[in-house]
Amino acid sequence: MNITEMGKRAETAKYSLQSLAGEKKEQALLAAADLLVRESSNILAANAIDIKNGEEKGMHPGMLDRLRLSKERIADMAEGLRSIAGLPDCLQETIESFERPNGLKISKVRVPLGVIGIIYESRPNVTADAFGLCFKTGNAVILKGGSDAIHSNTEITRIIREALKTMSVTEDALQLITDTDRKTTAEFMKLNQYLDVLIPRGSAGLIRAVVENSTVPVIETGTGNCHIYVDDAADFEKAVPIIINAKTQRIGVCNACESLVIHEKIKEAFLPVLAKALRENHVEMRGDEAVCDVLEDCILASPEDYGTEYLDYIISIKTVAGVEEAVAHINRYGTRHSEAIITENETHAKLFKEGVDAACVYVNASTRFTDGFEFGLGAEIGISTQKLHARGPMGLKELTTYKYTVDGNGQIR
Amino acid sequence: MNITEMGKRAETAKYSLQSLAGEKKEQALLAAADLLVRESSNILAANAIDIKNGEEKGMHPGMLDRLRLSKERIADMAEGLRSIAGLPDCLQETIESFERPNGLKISKVRVPLGVIGIIYESRPNVTADAFGLCFKTGNAVILKGGSDAIHSNTEITRIIREALKTMSVTEDALQLITDTDRKTTAEFMKLNQYLDVLIPRGSAGLIRAVVENSTVPVIETGTGNCHIYVDDAADFEKAVPIIINAKTQRIGVCNACESLVIHEKIKEAFLPVLAKALRENHVEMRGDEAVCDVLEDCILASPEDYGTEYLDYIISIKTVAGVEEAVAHINRYGTRHSEAIITENETHAKLFKEGVDAACVYVNASTRFTDGFEFGLGAEIGISTQKLHARGPMGLKELTTYKYTVDGNGQIR
Repeated sequence: MNITEMGKRAETAKYSLQSLAGEKKEQALLAAADLLVRESSNILAANAIDIKNGEEKGMHPGMLDRLRLSKERIADMAEGLRSIAGLPDCLQETIESFERPNGLKISKVRVPLGVIGIIYESRPNVTADAFGLCFKTGNAVILKGGSDAIHSNTEITRIIREALKTMSVTEDALQLITDTDRKTTAEFMKLNQYLDVLIPRGSAGLIRAVVENSTVPVIETGTGNCHIYVDDAADFEKAVPIIINAKTQRIGVCNACESLVIHEKIKEAFLPVLAKALRENHVEMRGDEAVCDVLEDCILASPEDYGTEYLDYIISIKTVAGVEEAVAHINRYGTRHSEAIITENETHAKLFKEGVDAACVYVNASTRFTDGFEFGLGAEIGISTQKLHARGPMGLKELTTYKYTVDGNGQIR
Repeated sequence: MNITEMGKRAETAKYSLQSLAGEKKEQALLAAADLLVRESSNILAANAIDIKNGEEKGMHPGMLDRLRLSKERIADMAEGLRSIAGLPDCLQETIESFERPNGLKISKVRVPLGVIGIIYESRPNVTADAFGLCFKTGNAVILKGGSDAIHSNTEITRIIREALKTMSVTEDALQLITDTDRKTTAEFMKLNQYLDVLIPRGSAGLIRAVVENSTVPVIETGTGNCHIYVDDAADFEKAVPIIINAKTQRIGVCNACESLVIHEKIKEAFLPVLAKALRENHVEMRGDEAVCDVLEDCILASPEDYGTEYLDYIISIKTVAGVEEAVAHINRYGTRHSEAIITENETHAKLFKEGVDAACVYVNASTRFTDGFEFGLGAEIGISTQKLHARGPMGLKELTTYKYTVDGNGQIR
């Protein structure tokens, strides 16, 4: 099927989904979860082909691990859908309503976005997860997964569509683009007539390609060159565990800390304490001259280091003269994701919170909390690093928009 | 100055503007308004050059009228800035705040978008207006006006920047791109490093070009192929004045009605009454066969008619079998702007409000009310016809975003 035809089907589906009762959606999500578990062996068989193809072309072991499914991973996928089913339905909520002097009654009502496109890479669990979030919010979704996972994604999609059919819900609530050539992806990114938004999920390269080539509105997610600034008024007993947590609890994620900014006044007192903890956690340090003067095993940082999202056991360290310089450094090198200050000084905390241009700004806490579940949103479609529509962790509400309904009795201008 | 340099300056300005006190912004807007009036003669002299150039190249009289300034129009421009100055400051407002079980205190705080780019056409008053709205919301703005108005825009910009300087506010809060070649515009639309959003204001062609070529997030505004559906349960005494108002009160605007949808059951009773009023207002009618059967002077509509935003004394008319068909027709041909139903039947009204995919859906009122001032927003930057970020009339809040600030006392994951 060509992309335009898929767009048309999604459009038809969106009108049927926008008025689907919350209970019906819940039942359909549970049915999809059950069927995924029941058909585990079929999913595993399809996944085995993807894994074999991946091995044959020498795929990196980390990539193979992301691609690989197991009974447990399929059970987790199903559990994810059940958990989405149980979340409250935010549709039809009246966000605001007011009456104008001429008697017009205006209501701002939450409605689905309509048709959502999602482009992602090798993890097949995104297929079920993205469907669940879009479906719960009354949206039709068109998915474009990585070609490496095409057999797994096709099978997961077939099963979910079958579950929808048995529940008398339009199967076109979920469509998967199975054509893996670049031309199709290019067409998808320009499908403005049918797509209301396009969300890339994956590597920095994927996200950049979508931002640069899409004419459909994009929600940019992902890259995080996150900093922790240790102020001269920092409590070292908070600073060290926060830094170790933010750097090492999970190194490959966007909210991990990649760079430290240290007040020059505390370099002699703080850096040796910190370095000991970093060494114990096998983290390589790359600092400026002031840092290297204090720490013998610190590598001299290049300017590129400050702009690098390592996603590895490496951290850059920069000394500054105070909170203003810290803010300027972070605004220069940060990716508008998550930034933290460690300080007991309220004025410094306030300057930092106001000055730093990022989705989430922390005082005395780990940047790792930037996450839909940690924020209590109950779900997460990604972390937005742009400023339009949604910023920071995006939950279900961020997959909706509003419309104004206006009730009159003959008003004219 | 090249575009990148302008981007850098805007970035520096945005950090200084984000913490500027509300009172200071108010004073600066008033100072700009006063100086525009005081320097009227300089603006008029610059405008005279643009008018002369326009006349020499045979510009359409309507375009010349939009381009032309007068003492009164400059006074209106200044009054616009004073009115923006007087609006409440929505920055630093806490939109939401909550505490997590681990003790993290999370606040969602309203902040400026940062740097806004605006691309517009020949009306020089947009220069002052767009500056006022962006400045009030703490944003730096880079403007790209039409080349036809370049002398007027340059002079208005010079005066506003001078007023900012006398108030010790960064002049780079407002920058105008004076280079009018296409290459510069193309660069501007890809200035992702510095621009947070790009807003096109003007013709459908301009908006399309920006949507297609920009890699910066765009807020799409404007085109309105607005419908009024006259239901079989309509009160004709409401229907006729609403249609005449929506079609003829101002023909060249996006919220004017371009197309009627009529329940087939009422064609004989309603169409002659309506046609009389339309004829009196010199509106040409283009209808389907059923309409032409009833109205002798009605022209047979082509399929293109239903998709045309006439912005003229022309209206298309389509008959349908009921509210579902009306909704389907409108969703097919509409531009997601403003759509109305005339009915006394509450079930039909509900079906219409839920089914139509548009920013504003009216029951028994004119589509002409889709307007920031009519909605009580106090200002308007445009009418968004996309679903991300803002939908319908955009006021000051729509020029802001939020950031999360998170206060902890050592929390780690």
